[in-house]
Amino acid sequence: MELDLEPIFSPSSVAIVGASPKREKVGNVILENFLRRFRGKIYPVNPKYDNIYGLKCYKKVSDIPEDVDLVVIAIPARFVPDVLEDAAKKGVKGAIIISSGFSEVGEEGRKLENKLREIREKYGIRIIGPNGMGIYDPYSGVDTFFVYDDRVRRPPKGNIAIISQSGATALALMEWLSERGIGVSKIISFGNKVDVDEVDLLEEFMADPTVDAVFIYLEGLKEGRGYKFVKLSKEFTKTKTIVVLKAGKSKKGQEAVASHTASMAGDYEVYKFALKQAGIIEAETIDDFLKYLQVFSYFGKRRVKKLLIYTNGGGFGVLSTDYASREGFDLPPLSPALRSVIEEILPDFASIKNPLDTTASAPEDSYLKGLKRVLEFQEYDAILSILLPQLPSYTEDFPRKFAEIYDGKTPIVFVIYGGEFSRKIKEELSKIVPVFDTPEEAIRALKILKVR
Amino acid sequence: MELDLEPIFSPSSVAIVGASPKREKVGNVILENFLRRFRGKIYPVNPKYDNIYGLKCYKKVSDIPEDVDLVVIAIPARFVPDVLEDAAKKGVKGAIIISSGFSEVGEEGRKLENKLREIREKYGIRIIGPNGMGIYDPYSGVDTFFVYDDRVRRPPKGNIAIISQSGATALALMEWLSERGIGVSKIISFGNKVDVDEVDLLEEFMADPTVDAVFIYLEGLKEGRGYKFVKLSKEFTKTKTIVVLKAGKSKKGQEAVASHTASMAGDYEVYKFALKQAGIIEAETIDDFLKYLQVFSYFGKRRVKKLLIYTNGGGFGVLSTDYASREGFDLPPLSPALRSVIEEILPDFASIKNPLDTTASAPEDSYLKGLKRVLEFQEYDAILSILLPQLPSYTEDFPRKFAEIYDGKTPIVFVIYGGEFSRKIKEELSKIVPVFDTPEEAIRALKILKVR
Repeated sequence: MELDLEPIFSPSSVAIVGASPKREKVGNVILENFLRRFRGKIYPVNPKYDNIYGLKCYKKVSDIPEDVDLVVIAIPARFVPDVLEDAAKKGVKGAIIISSGFSEVGEEGRKLENKLREIREKYGIRIIGPNGMGIYDPYSGVDTFFVYDDRVRRPPKGNIAIISQSGATALALMEWLSERGIGVSKIISFGNKVDVDEVDLLEEFMADPTVDAVFIYLEGLKEGRGYKFVKLSKEFTKTKTIVVLKAGKSKKGQEAVASHTASMAGDYEVYKFALKQAGIIEAETIDDFLKYLQVFSYFGKRRVKKLLIYTNGGGFGVLSTDYASREGFDLPPLSPALRSVIEEILPDFASIKNPLDTTASAPEDSYLKGLKRVLEFQEYDAILSILLPQLPSYTEDFPRKFAEIYDGKTPIVFVIYGGEFSRKIKEELSKIVPVFDTPEEAIRALKILKVR
Repeated sequence: MELDLEPIFSPSSVAIVGASPKREKVGNVILENFLRRFRGKIYPVNPKYDNIYGLKCYKKVSDIPEDVDLVVIAIPARFVPDVLEDAAKKGVKGAIIISSGFSEVGEEGRKLENKLREIREKYGIRIIGPNGMGIYDPYSGVDTFFVYDDRVRRPPKGNIAIISQSGATALALMEWLSERGIGVSKIISFGNKVDVDEVDLLEEFMADPTVDAVFIYLEGLKEGRGYKFVKLSKEFTKTKTIVVLKAGKSKKGQEAVASHTASMAGDYEVYKFALKQAGIIEAETIDDFLKYLQVFSYFGKRRVKKLLIYTNGGGFGVLSTDYASREGFDLPPLSPALRSVIEEILPDFASIKNPLDTTASAPEDSYLKGLKRVLEFQEYDAILSILLPQLPSYTEDFPRKFAEIYDGKTPIVFVIYGGEFSRKIKEELSKIVPVFDTPEEAIRALKILKVR
């Protein structure tokens, strides 16, 4: 008996087991989250209270007189199976289990987790978790991330879905995204994934118009799911984007995965090959993963092979050239036509090659005029624009002037290093295009767009 | 006739050729820099003015009635040889030439540069430059970096010397350091290095008590200097530290180097081997270079082989394990004695291995108590401490509590991701130990301490 995930992603009513009026309790954080964003009915469940924040509080889920779509369970592991069964019996079709202490801690936990599996089989209730943060979904208002909103701000609505076995990683991503104003469709942290896994979610997201890309922190797929995952991903990546950060690459890392979410990390070489086959972009490190998120949020799905490095600092031009070559970008020279146009604009000792070094003597207006002409000629798939705005003649007006010349056709990423004075310029510029601190960061970020 | 570098590093008097009262002019920036910090005599030289800011302004250096130790030259390239010769004839022993337009721009420039070389040979005047930012030295007050102090703040006095052929890279490093309050002995950007080069500077710094480490951005050594550089470095690294970032590794990068500072980048494999032989730490990227600077400023010269990963987030523990393994750190388990001590402190489902995962359920005090015991046992050469401070029970008091348990014996680097709420904690904590955003950044940073 397979049920769809609607009760989990679009519930009209939710029961929160472990709800509490006491600050710092997990059940308090979750209740407050739902009260802030969720527009459906909320039923606190906790035998200790008659009501919480003016809401009637129930002893058991089965005591709730109305229908309930989703149950959120945040109580010690040993009590979870009974609560889940009580809810399933009542007809609840979706559950998010936050509690830790299952198969990741050994034999006792494994037994408890098997009980969840049996209930899932018997009643068909779909389960997210246990041992994860659950779901944050700005569209539905579901938010089981048990950290107060004033500690980790929530990202706005957007077109990226995040899947993470690890709760802490999901939380880190959440904060990182909201800091940058990058929107999400949902963030899902399903820990030991006793039921719903990456395959189920990809199926769900295939038809979801709010999802253009899925970013996955993956410890290991469940046994027997590899084939389906690759097959589905192949289909998915024809129109949408998947990025995977694989954890448990090293032998030591694989052992750590077993202690963490009781997953089998598997042979990394096999994964690497499978991801490639499936059209999935692999992020080698969490740093790359974050950069890919950033670039995707600006430019979506693009194809970049030919890159121009445009700089007013020679040294950073050289470093960028080394790094871009190493990462497999093409750095063709300018066409003779474009070259002669640019020569008219820049100082005599500028180097009109690739990297194109305007030198520190080029004033702001020449730097921008040159960039404008490069954009108009459309000879490159992307531009890495390195700016040292601290030089005399550069002003805080740079971002406004850039907005005037930028047509949005060619992806540009900026590199601006520096502190106080640069901060304002970086902030303003990043409303238009991505801005990074160092050439290598920018080039690593561009890798998400690279033709593979 | 070889003269020492004292007139350049400890001048009592300086002539600034090209000095100007006009804002934004290079000669205005440099004059203002000297007026701010330099305690010796300052002589502006510019035929257009009789006095600037109340200082008498001279038409030529030779018009100055007193002795001059150092001349700073910031005028168009074609006028530089005559000015240099005039100064050398007068007996000036040191020159910093800021001007661009020499061998990096082709044949004409090469001729001009040869003239500088001839004057250097004839009169023995020592030259920094041309085509660089010159010198910033907080001890002597020499500061020819032609960017206003309110655009790029200057770092305080410290024990690190920076050498960079590239001016923009030197400037970027300057700003990056001052942002973090990391002090320097001096920053030197000598562009085409017609005279003084890395070898001369290493000789100088060997005896300089204000220099414990030299960080070099290197495009290429001058012909015939390789052997001496390696020999000297071998000696130098017995007591002090050298870190090199080599630019021009790729073929394209080598071409870019030629256009930039007219250097021969040379065969990278040869450099790689030579650096290793010389006991030099190579930074693969500018990102690594910056991280090494940061870690050195906290811990100086140390040796790390055995690393413990200590985390309250499992996913980041796994990622750290993968990355630390890849980078060659040993991750031995805890001794049985330490293990049983830690078991008493942490929750039941904590994973007392390496990575040591306290889990998100460990309250702040347990996290710190565990860390304290780990430090006391001294089983590890360094600790990577991953903290998710957004969890309930963690407080803004964490840095103060950490300061109480930290004895400074074992290097610790923290990983704290996050925004608003974490910022204060990061800021406070970074007064004691380095703090990074992601596990990979922290591990890359630790590589400077790794036993090679």
